[in-house]
Amino acid sequence: GGGGGSGGGVGPPAALKRADTRPGRGHSPAPHGWPSDIPGLEYAGEVEVSRGDPARWRPGDRVMGLVGGGAQAEYVVVHEDEMLAVPATLTWPEAAAVPESFLTAYDALTTRARVHPGERVLVHAAGSGLGTAAAQIAHQLGATVIGTSRTPEKLARAVMFGLDGGIDTSGGSFLGELGEPVDVILDVLGGAAFADNIAALAPRGRLVVLGLLSGSRAAADLGDVLRKRIEIIGTVMRTRGHEERAALVREFTATMLPLFAQGALRPVVDRVVRMDDLAAAHTLMEQNDSFGKFVAVWDTDDTR
Amino acid sequence: GGGGGSGGGVGPPAALKRADTRPGRGHSPAPHGWPSDIPGLEYAGEVEVSRGDPARWRPGDRVMGLVGGGAQAEYVVVHEDEMLAVPATLTWPEAAAVPESFLTAYDALTTRARVHPGERVLVHAAGSGLGTAAAQIAHQLGATVIGTSRTPEKLARAVMFGLDGGIDTSGGSFLGELGEPVDVILDVLGGAAFADNIAALAPRGRLVVLGLLSGSRAAADLGDVLRKRIEIIGTVMRTRGHEERAALVREFTATMLPLFAQGALRPVVDRVVRMDDLAAAHTLMEQNDSFGKFVAVWDTDDTR
Repeated sequence: GGGGGSGGGVGPPAALKRADTRPGRGHSPAPHGWPSDIPGLEYAGEVEVSRGDPARWRPGDRVMGLVGGGAQAEYVVVHEDEMLAVPATLTWPEAAAVPESFLTAYDALTTRARVHPGERVLVHAAGSGLGTAAAQIAHQLGATVIGTSRTPEKLARAVMFGLDGGIDTSGGSFLGELGEPVDVILDVLGGAAFADNIAALAPRGRLVVLGLLSGSRAAADLGDVLRKRIEIIGTVMRTRGHEERAALVREFTATMLPLFAQGALRPVVDRVVRMDDLAAAHTLMEQNDSFGKFVAVWDTDDTR
Repeated sequence: GGGGGSGGGVGPPAALKRADTRPGRGHSPAPHGWPSDIPGLEYAGEVEVSRGDPARWRPGDRVMGLVGGGAQAEYVVVHEDEMLAVPATLTWPEAAAVPESFLTAYDALTTRARVHPGERVLVHAAGSGLGTAAAQIAHQLGATVIGTSRTPEKLARAVMFGLDGGIDTSGGSFLGELGEPVDVILDVLGGAAFADNIAALAPRGRLVVLGLLSGSRAAADLGDVLRKRIEIIGTVMRTRGHEERAALVREFTATMLPLFAQGALRPVVDRVVRMDDLAAAHTLMEQNDSFGKFVAVWDTDDTR
């Protein structure tokens, strides 16, 4: 259980992400205060103990959330203000697939990129957990959403999750197929896509860089950045402190959480694996043919 | 005189800037609706005719402002909401040195970079018209201001205009002398300074790119941009439409204009030249030894 004003320890399951799968590839270590020897950045489970006064949560409450590390464990200790209530319509694996993708996408689209209704939003890696969350949230914000993927089948499936149009990038850049420029880009590719991203933006466009799957070295023509008055916004969720995490959870709870119960937002689980079978799961994830998230559970009873 | 809801035609003088001096070097042409054959982006003068109903301005009112082009003329026609009242304490050349530098610096520091009291702000080319305006405004916003210049004498003079510390870059990069990272950079250098600017920023830092004096090609490590959650904001004043210009003038009038009368903000005029002697003035400007602005007048009686 937690101490001081902390919320409860909670059980399974946890979702996997690529950051977990690549410990030796230059990804950032666990931020201060989080376990460095246990992977996992998000969890879902039942509250075991709650120490708030008065306690916001009661034992047995279904909760989910982000942590700086250590989610692939039987218990986590988190602040009560950093937990989200699990919508009653979601299974445990669906709940575990929500926090990282949906909080990151929501933060990127609203606080960072300030998406307005009617704007055009481009989402790279549209078949990923983040991509499917971003397309759905952007759609809810009134934007037109275009997605890219190197796998045409993923684009076809992503149409069920808010995508208005898809661009197959198996043959190269998305730029030739884009048509009109876009107002906002959510990018997880980084380096190799940078110049095309700048070229794809409309005047006053915003590029939110969330990942570096194609490398970190980028070359840019700042003339375009000035002339079009572009904003390039780097963002990362994991290193944020308590105040910022709690504020995001509060805002997301008010604006987005009700949309899950209505079915307007749906987490996408590619498959559920066992915690004692993670090595095989990581190998599968590296093959890049998943659609949505991998979720790990301690007990296959937890798939409901 | 103007038509419709437009404000008055006004007389001398106009300030020069580098954009005027380099017509053949890739600078942007005049935006739609502004004269392409007359240079000049800012003016000061007396209202000749005002057509508002009711008119905001009366003949003889001392006004100053930005235009998309055509300020090096005997008359300009501008919208009444895009004009600023000239503070009574300013001479004509001082007034002509205000609009571009102070509106650009104010917009960059407040709306773009959101400078908070106590933050550290780095201003490149601290001896320029923009640099001296930015240092003064950042000081008023409660920031600590560090400036760079390739000319030590300019740094010494800039201390009188809000600079808390200066870095002589005649020997190379500013990075080694910077000490603590900075929260905001106002950059007119562009390409060659880009990587050092990213390196110099603190977590959540903002880089506002206002010019490309060192070129437009930039190489960056996006890893730093993500990890530090940096924002890179390209901005330009000239292409903005009426609504945005009017909003900026309104806000600047309310918050900054009173500070000129108090002496807390002071435009910096390096020298006053005659409109019929601009070729010589441009040659002088290219030598890069000026401190503050060059102002052109039609009549040397207009220097008061």
